[in-house]
Amino acid sequence: MSTIIQDVTARIAAQPTLARRAKAFEVSPWAEAWDLVSRHPDPIYFGNGAPAHEAQPLDRLREAGARAWTEADGVLDYGEVEGYRPLRELIAARMAIRGMPIDPDEVMITNGSQQGIDLVARLMLDPGDRIVVEGPVYIGAMQTFDAYEASYLVVPVDDEGLDVAALERLLETTGARPKLIYTVPTFQNPTGITMTGARREALLALARERAILVLEDDPYGELYYGSAPEAPLRALDPAVVHLGTFSKTIAPGIRVGWTVAPRRLMDLLLMAKEGSDIHTDRIITRTVYHTADGFLDTHIAALRELYRRRRDTLLAGLRRHLPSDVTWSCPGGGFFVWVRLPGEADADALLPLAAAEGVAFLPGSWFYPAGQKEHTGFRLSFSSLPIDRIEEGTRRLGAAIEMFLMTT
Amino acid sequence: MSTIIQDVTARIAAQPTLARRAKAFEVSPWAEAWDLVSRHPDPIYFGNGAPAHEAQPLDRLREAGARAWTEADGVLDYGEVEGYRPLRELIAARMAIRGMPIDPDEVMITNGSQQGIDLVARLMLDPGDRIVVEGPVYIGAMQTFDAYEASYLVVPVDDEGLDVAALERLLETTGARPKLIYTVPTFQNPTGITMTGARREALLALARERAILVLEDDPYGELYYGSAPEAPLRALDPAVVHLGTFSKTIAPGIRVGWTVAPRRLMDLLLMAKEGSDIHTDRIITRTVYHTADGFLDTHIAALRELYRRRRDTLLAGLRRHLPSDVTWSCPGGGFFVWVRLPGEADADALLPLAAAEGVAFLPGSWFYPAGQKEHTGFRLSFSSLPIDRIEEGTRRLGAAIEMFLMTT
Repeated sequence: MSTIIQDVTARIAAQPTLARRAKAFEVSPWAEAWDLVSRHPDPIYFGNGAPAHEAQPLDRLREAGARAWTEADGVLDYGEVEGYRPLRELIAARMAIRGMPIDPDEVMITNGSQQGIDLVARLMLDPGDRIVVEGPVYIGAMQTFDAYEASYLVVPVDDEGLDVAALERLLETTGARPKLIYTVPTFQNPTGITMTGARREALLALARERAILVLEDDPYGELYYGSAPEAPLRALDPAVVHLGTFSKTIAPGIRVGWTVAPRRLMDLLLMAKEGSDIHTDRIITRTVYHTADGFLDTHIAALRELYRRRRDTLLAGLRRHLPSDVTWSCPGGGFFVWVRLPGEADADALLPLAAAEGVAFLPGSWFYPAGQKEHTGFRLSFSSLPIDRIEEGTRRLGAAIEMFLMTT
Repeated sequence: MSTIIQDVTARIAAQPTLARRAKAFEVSPWAEAWDLVSRHPDPIYFGNGAPAHEAQPLDRLREAGARAWTEADGVLDYGEVEGYRPLRELIAARMAIRGMPIDPDEVMITNGSQQGIDLVARLMLDPGDRIVVEGPVYIGAMQTFDAYEASYLVVPVDDEGLDVAALERLLETTGARPKLIYTVPTFQNPTGITMTGARREALLALARERAILVLEDDPYGELYYGSAPEAPLRALDPAVVHLGTFSKTIAPGIRVGWTVAPRRLMDLLLMAKEGSDIHTDRIITRTVYHTADGFLDTHIAALRELYRRRRDTLLAGLRRHLPSDVTWSCPGGGFFVWVRLPGEADADALLPLAAAEGVAFLPGSWFYPAGQKEHTGFRLSFSSLPIDRIEEGTRRLGAAIEMFLMTT
C-alpha cells in the first residue's frame, strides 16, 4: 500500500465520533408528501401547516420595520438577553386578558416558540429522561426533544384531548417518573382537538402530585372560530411553562415567540438563552412590537374570519365527499383537522394513491416517535389553501379513499 | 400541621428536578466589573469587548433594511433552514479570498457565531466528553459547552498561541481522548495572541492523527492592523469547522453569523438548527446581505484604521505607565490585550483597587473553567473606548498596579 493510500485510509477511518443524540437527527419529513403530489399537474397540498401567506400584514410590518430602524441607534450593540421590554409588556398585557396575569419579567423573547421548547428541554432533560407527549404529537417538538435524548411516553388524544386517565395508568404500570409533560392543549397540532376543562384540571393535579413540569405550547389559542376556548393551563397553575408565538398571528419568517416561566426557572432559562445565541435580533423584536401594538386585535379578528371560512369549507367537503365510515375531528380553531380511516386502514399506504389523484396530506405515523407509531390517522391543514382548492381537494380525497378502501 | 400547610409544603417540596447541566449555568460575569467601577464619578471600563458603537454603519444598515422590506413578500413564510443563499454566496466568496475556497452549501447562517458553537457542541458532545480549550478561553464558549456537560482540558496559550506540545503531553499523561478542540487562533479572546503557522500545522496534524474535530472560532480574523495574519485553520484543512460572524464588522445586535462545515457534518448541523429554532430571521439575513454587498471591504478598511489607533494608544500607554515587571501581549488585530502581573500577584485582588481609581478590566480567572483557574492575568479591551479615555485609563491602571504591588 502506497503512503498516499495509507494516508487517505487513515484520514477516512479517523472521523471524529458524533454525539449519541446525532443518531436521532432526521431530515424533516415535510418535503416528502409535497414531492409525491407535485408530480400532479394541478396539485392540492393539505400538508402545509403554515399560516395563510396572503393574510400577512405586510404593509404594517414594513411601517413597523421602518420605525424600528429609525430607533436603531443604541439597538445594534449587544443587548437585552430577555428581549425588548415593551414587547414583553405587550405580551404580559395580552396574557392578562386571557386569564394569565403575569409580570413582564416572567416573559423571555425567543426565536419562535421552537426555541422555547429547546431551552426548556435544555433546562430539564438529562439523557434517557422520560417525557410525556400526546399521541399524535407536533413533529417539530420531537425534533427538539430528540436532541436531548428524551424517552417518550405517548398518551393518546381522544375527543376531550390528552387522556389523563390513560396517562395515570401508564405511570402506574410502568413506574415511569417523567420530568416533563409537553402538550398543545388548545387546537392541537396535529389533531385540532382541544382539551376539556375537566381534563385540564386533572392533568395539572397529576403533574403537581408527581412534580412533573407541564410545558404548554399555545401557538393557536387566539385563533378560535366560535366561542373562546378553555383557559390556558398557565391560567390555572402558575407553575406551568407557557410558550407563545407571533408566527401564526403575524408571520413565521420573522422568528419571534416567547416563553413564560416562574422567576426561579426564568433566571436559568435566560442563562440557557445567553449560552445558546446571546439574544434574539433586537431590530426584529422592535419591529414585532410596533406591528402588534394597537393592531393585533383587529388583525386577529380578520384572521378568525378567514380561517373560519376555510375550516367550514373543509368540514363541509369532508361530510360531502368522504365515505361514511371515515371520521374526523371538528376543531374550534387552529389550522388542523385529523381524519381517521376505518378499521386498520393505513394512511401511509393511502398517501401515494391520493397523490396520484392530485391531493396530499401528512400521514399520522409521522406524528409519533419511532417504535410507537399509529397508522390510521392523517392531518389536513386548511390554513394556507383558498376555499375553492379546499373544496376540490376534499372531492379528490373522497375519491382516493373510496378507491383505497375498496382495494384493501 | 394544618392541611393548608401540608399542601403548601408538598407543593414546595415537589419541584420538578432540573437537568444535571443546569448546575453549571451561571450569570455571565460581565456586569460585575462594571458594577465595581461605575461607583467612580468618571469610570473607564476596559471590560467591554463589544465593537465600537460609533463605527456601526447605521445609514447603510437602514438602507439595507428598507430594501429587505421591499423584498419581503414571500420572505415572511417559513423558509430556508440554511439561510439566504446570496448571503451564503457572499460569505463563500469572501472566504475564498482568504484561502478557503468553499461551496455556499458548506455555509449555514446562524444567530451569531455563538449559535454555531451551540450546534457543533450539540452534534459532537455527550455528557462527560473531553474538550480542549485554550487557557484562558472565551467565556461565552464555556457557557455553551457547560450546557453539554463537557469536561475541559485546558492548554496554555503562550506568545505563539495554543501550546501544541503541552496539549500532546497532556493527552499522553492523562490518556484523554477529546472529541473537540475549540480555538480562537487569530487575535484570540481574551489574550489577543495569534497562533503561528508552525503551531497551526502541528495542531492540525495532532487533530487528524487522533480524530479530534477542530472548531475554529474566527470573529476577529479580518480586523488586523498591520499585515494580514496567518491563514485560518480551515484554509489548511477542510475538515476544520469554521465559525464567522458579522457581529464585529457590522453590528452584534443583529445576531448574524455563519458556520462552515464539510457536507457530511453540515447535513446534521442543519437538522440541529431546525430543531433548535427552525431558521434565522429571514428579513435580517437579507438586510445583512444588502449591507455587506459592495460595502464591507471599504467598511472593514475604516475599522482597521480606527482600531489600530486605539490599540497603539493602549500599548503606548501601557509602556508609559505600567511598572517594568508587568508584561502584556502585542496583538496584531482584534480587540484585546492580555496583561500579566509579576510573580504570583492576583488580578482578582487588583480589580477593586483599580475600580477605586476609576478603571476596570476583566480578571483572567474569569476566562478559565472552574477548578482550573489562573489569577495573574487580566484582559483589556480597546475596541469600544475613545483614544483619550484609553490614555487616561492606562495612567490610572499604572497607578493602581504600582500601589497594589507595593502593598502585596
